[in-house]
Order: sequence, then C-alpha cells, then structure tokens
Amino acid sequence: METSTHPGDELELSIDLRLAPGESAATRAAEIAREQTVELDLALVPEPVRAAAAGRVVAVAETGPHRAHARLAFPAAAAGAELPQLLNLLFGNISMQRGVRLTAVRWPEALLAAFPGPACGVDGLRARCGVTVRRPLLLATLKPLGLGASELAQLAGRLARGGIDLVKDDHSLADQPWAPFAERVARCQEAVAAANRHGRSCLYVPNLTGPIDRLGERVEMLTSLGVRAALIAPLLVGLDTVRSLAARSGLALLAHPSLSGALLGATHGFAPALLWGELFRLAGADGVIYPHAGNRFRFTRRECLDVAAALRRPLGAFAPAFPVLGGGMDAARIRRLRRLYGPDTIFLAGASLLGHPAPEEGAAALRHEIEREPSPPGRLSGSR
Amino acid sequence: METSTHPGDELELSIDLRLAPGESAATRAAEIAREQTVELDLALVPEPVRAAAAGRVVAVAETGPHRAHARLAFPAAAAGAELPQLLNLLFGNISMQRGVRLTAVRWPEALLAAFPGPACGVDGLRARCGVTVRRPLLLATLKPLGLGASELAQLAGRLARGGIDLVKDDHSLADQPWAPFAERVARCQEAVAAANRHGRSCLYVPNLTGPIDRLGERVEMLTSLGVRAALIAPLLVGLDTVRSLAARSGLALLAHPSLSGALLGATHGFAPALLWGELFRLAGADGVIYPHAGNRFRFTRRECLDVAAALRRPLGAFAPAFPVLGGGMDAARIRRLRRLYGPDTIFLAGASLLGHPAPEEGAAALRHEIEREPSPPGRLSGSR
Repeated sequence: METSTHPGDELELSIDLRLAPGESAATRAAEIAREQTVELDLALVPEPVRAAAAGRVVAVAETGPHRAHARLAFPAAAAGAELPQLLNLLFGNISMQRGVRLTAVRWPEALLAAFPGPACGVDGLRARCGVTVRRPLLLATLKPLGLGASELAQLAGRLARGGIDLVKDDHSLADQPWAPFAERVARCQEAVAAANRHGRSCLYVPNLTGPIDRLGERVEMLTSLGVRAALIAPLLVGLDTVRSLAARSGLALLAHPSLSGALLGATHGFAPALLWGELFRLAGADGVIYPHAGNRFRFTRRECLDVAAALRRPLGAFAPAFPVLGGGMDAARIRRLRRLYGPDTIFLAGASLLGHPAPEEGAAALRHEIEREPSPPGRLSGSR
Repeated sequence: METSTHPGDELELSIDLRLAPGESAATRAAEIAREQTVELDLALVPEPVRAAAAGRVVAVAETGPHRAHARLAFPAAAAGAELPQLLNLLFGNISMQRGVRLTAVRWPEALLAAFPGPACGVDGLRARCGVTVRRPLLLATLKPLGLGASELAQLAGRLARGGIDLVKDDHSLADQPWAPFAERVARCQEAVAAANRHGRSCLYVPNLTGPIDRLGERVEMLTSLGVRAALIAPLLVGLDTVRSLAARSGLALLAHPSLSGALLGATHGFAPALLWGELFRLAGADGVIYPHAGNRFRFTRRECLDVAAALRRPLGAFAPAFPVLGGGMDAARIRRLRRLYGPDTIFLAGASLLGHPAPEEGAAALRHEIEREPSPPGRLSGSR
C-alpha cells in the first residue's frame, strides 16, 4: 500500500471501491478525491489552490478482483464547519457514481469541535427517564397510523403504567386527520403524566418530524406541555435540522432511520456505523433507532454492533448516545441481546407488546425482565 | 396481473421488486404495503383503521426470475399534506430492505394541491434571465473551491460579459475561509451586475445550501443584494427546506443532486425521474441539475430523458421546471443534446469553459452556438 503523510487538519476517509474491468484503483481514487473537492482537472487548478483545497489520495490497495480500498484526505477547511457541506464533501457528487462505499472517517478534532453533538446523551436521557440504575431502557411505540388521538393516549397510559421507560409516537404519525399533532401530543403527554403521578417515570416521545417551517411552533407546543423528548427522522428533515434542534430545542432527540437505509448500499453509500453511529451522533441524536440483525431488515450482526460501538466510543467531546434496537423485540430476544449490547442500550418493543391483550401486562412483564437480570458484562460477544 | 379497483384519494406506487429464492411476490408486496403504513400485522389492526389507513396491493405480477412488479395504493390522508411524511410513506422503512425500487407514483390531485411546486418555473426563470426567445439557457459554474472571493467574482464577470445566462457558485462553495459566503455573494453579484449594466442580462445563482438556522439571514442578505436565484441541494438540507424556500424566499431555485445519487440504486431506491423529476419539482425546484448520460456518472440516456419529461409534464397545477444538464458539456455536446432535449433546457458548461484561456471568449462562443441554431424540433429522439 503506497502511503504519504498528511497534516492533522484533514479528514481521512476510508473507501471501498468496485472497479470496472481494467480500471486502475489509483486513478479512480484520485478522481474521487478531485471530484469531491475542486471538481476540475488538476491542470486547471492553480497550485496554491490545489495545495489548500484539493483532496488527495493517502493510500490505495487492490483488495480483490475489481476491488480496492482507498484512503483519501480532504482539508477540514473544505467543510467550512457546516453540516450540509460536510455531507457534500463526504458523499456529494460521488453519490451519482457506482461502487463507492464510505466505511470510516478519521475526524480532525477541530472539525468535531464545531458540532455540539448530543445535548443529553446516555446519562442525560437516563435522568429524564428516572433510570439511574445501569440497566437497558424499554421503549414502546404508539401505533398503528389511523388510530384516534384518544386511543393512542389510552395506549400510552397503559404502556406507561406497565413500566415502559419511553413511549414514542410511531414515525408515521405526523399531522393526519385521524390524530392531529396538537391533539395527539396533548392527550398522550397527559396520559403518560397521569401514570407518572402514580409512581412511574415514563418519558413521552412525540414525533416531531414535520414541515420545516412549523418545527419552531411545534417545539414550543411540546415545551409548554412539559414534553422533554422527541422523535426525529434525520433524512426526512435534513441532518442539519437535527443539529439545530439539538442545539436549541431543549428536547432529547431519538433519531429514526426512515429513508436512510437507501444510503447504506452493500457496495455504494455509507457503512451503517458511519451514518447512524457517527453522523447522526455528530448531529446531536441522543439515541439512534435501527433494526438489529435477523429480522425483516437486512443488516448483519457485525454492522449492528458497529453502530452501537460508534454511538458510544470517545469522539471529540461528544456525549455517548444510545443504540435503540428495534425489529421484532420480545422478552426472549431482549434477554439475549442485552448480553451482546450491554446496559447502555434501549430496546424498542414492537408488535409483541401491541399484540398483547392487555398492553400494561405485556409492559410489566418486559419491565420485570429488564430489572430482574443482573447487569451483564459489557463484552460485545456471545450468542444472539 | 391481478387487479382491484381503488378510490381516487390514494397514491398509487409502482414498484419493481427483487425477490429472494422461493419468496412470493404477492406476500412481499403485501408486507411492503403494511410496513409503510400501519406497520403491524393486520390481525392487530382494528378493521376501521385498516380500511382507512393501511396500504394495499392493487396488482402484482412476476416479471422474471426473482423479479416482480407491484402496484400499491396508500391513502392520501396518510401523507398528512406534509412533505417529510410523504417521503416516509414512499420510502421510509423499506429503505432498510433490499430490492425495492420505486419507479412511479400516480398522485391524487388533492395531495398535489397541498404543495405549491415551482415558484418561477420555466417561464419565470426565463424572465429573470431576460431570455424570452425560446432557446436553451447557458449556465456556468464558479469554481474551484479554494479560490478567493475576488477571483471568483472576476470569473463571474467574465462569464457574464461573454453572454452566459446564469452563473452559479459551485455546490462546494459554502462559507469556507477562502471565500466566505457574505463576501463572495456580494462580490459576485456586483461583478454580474456590472456586466448587466453593459447590455448583458445574467443571473447570479449563489449556493444557499447552508446551516438550516442561517438560511433566513442568508436569504435576507441575498435579497438585499438584488440576487434573484439560488442553488440548493435538497438532500443536504432536506427536501422540505426547498419547499419552504420556494414558498417564502422569492428566489428562483436550482436544485443540485449532491448526495441524492445514493437514493437512485439500480435495484433499490427511486427511479431518477421520480426523485429528480417529480419530487424535486413538487418541492419547488425551478430547475434540477443532473448529469446527462455518457460521462463520469452512471445514468442511462433513457433515465435522463425521463427526468426531463417528468420536470415538464402536466402535474397538478405545477409550473414546468427546467432540466439542467451537466457533465462534460462543451459546444459540440450541447449542439447534439439540444436536438434531444428541446429548447426548455439549461446546459451547464463545465470544465470546457473554465479551461479556456479567456473565459469570456469561451462563453461568447457558447452563446453564439446557442443563438445561432434554429429552434430545433421538440421531439425527444435523434443522436446523442
């Protein structure tokens, strides 16, 4: 592998490439470095501009037939400390090519420092749920789309009384006629507050993913109701909107992966740990929802564990964030997965809970399960 | 193909599926219809909710080995007249599966009416460029990243004097130290205005793709400078931000495809005509930049022509929008492509212009070319 040195004020990208027959890995890597920065034949770029702003190839190696791995360095200044431009730098024009998969980024500290990251993080979200003992948290979803606000609120109250730590809106609940936003959040918050007046400490997490020019008024509405957390789908509103909400709203934010799976192709796009783990956390998500392996979605166990590791590992001055594991979670699966993921995890109990004839009993059984087990070892191994 | 009827207040989605060996197309289609709406086993959904809110399969047919085509219907009310939720409905959770490609949507008129679409459209943007004769428009880009504001402004002035109709910032120009936003837009606008005082009618199009909480002040700054158009990358700021800007900013908007290519997989994601043609236009883009086939990107000629058709076809009450064709455009290529795309097209001249020793002469040659040729027939055929 050819290598050259690089100064510390650069982002270093690790990229897996699929090459056309006869294509040179070195040429392809150099084209990508140029495409993502100066976007011109280097012969047309004055030397001082090239030195300051052009991306460059740090190392490139063929890894198999028509496959290569490249490390590219981009000047941190090219990102301009703005998240939309950072995304553009990472995967702007090359999104329109094929066979370019961004697997990791080495971040310069100065760039990380431009983003506050999670406002609450693991400890802050634990505090809002009143769970200081180090066990996983339980999250349940209010659905289906089509229920009325009072039915959703009734369900919220039952789940809260049963001992669920966080009760969220389904990500499909927006401002539809069946349960308009204002009515729904007021009723659900009141139902959860009523349970909390009887000894529970549940956090209601309404879906804030709405029109960009109504987010301000919706945040105000939530705040006035005493709501302290919200669900937001970064790809539906733009990742930078999450950053802005994390910085200003006062709400803990759970990020939903809607639409984002399209960016996670097996040979083109982002590695899940980079998008869901690092970029969603950099934008300010206190927890990131994603499906654990082995259900109707398509991610491997290794990829899912890598996301969790990325959410919690030391990165700039960012607080660690929760992995929030969805996809067919019932008591047995949660019991297995907590060994794998450790206590700083949120489990999203789905249909198993809503299918229970008495949701509060299903909730209580899960709560019993999550409290009963001794704090497991933190090692990321063991059976699924 | 099995078919059932459907009422007019539904979105009808056309989807190409790749199936696992032994997987039933009908089962897969039904799972997708459920996943994207009620997201629960239908046995758990009360009958009135199912009837009102659940997606359903209209028709499904196997189209080859492990391939199928499905038509699904979703209640329009599920979108709640909000663009983030519309995106979620179209490709939220299924983004995390594989082998689901959304190729077309039949839109209910009532849903389209909730979105204003392009504020200027083809005619409005022509008027802002002062080009009422029905010829294609010429667009050039200020780059590379790393040039100073005065150098970019000098280039803008030369391109405007040469007769380029629109001069835009490169999409990588944000607020970097080399050419900070405020300084750059003021200088470039002044340089273009100076050319316009000498008989030109060029429109400067700065890159507005910036932090979500600074867009308001940047729009004000542009307006106060007399800027009347801007570049915005919908996937970098969120598609709904484009809608909001189209409704309120007073600026004509050119949409840039940065990052969006990741959503356009060959077997998973959106067809380009749906994302770039219909959704970007629905959000309010007056022109959509994308690369024509046959260069360093990966789209077919058919796909590229379909995008242009989608941007211009009757759709709700939307004004038609311009296809803005990039990717290695020089005079010869523009001459060929204008026969294919017709006059309501913008050609983005790239490196051929910036590599010219005297950019104003290169610009003048292109202007001569675009004015010289008689208005071509509108048919979408002929050589590349």
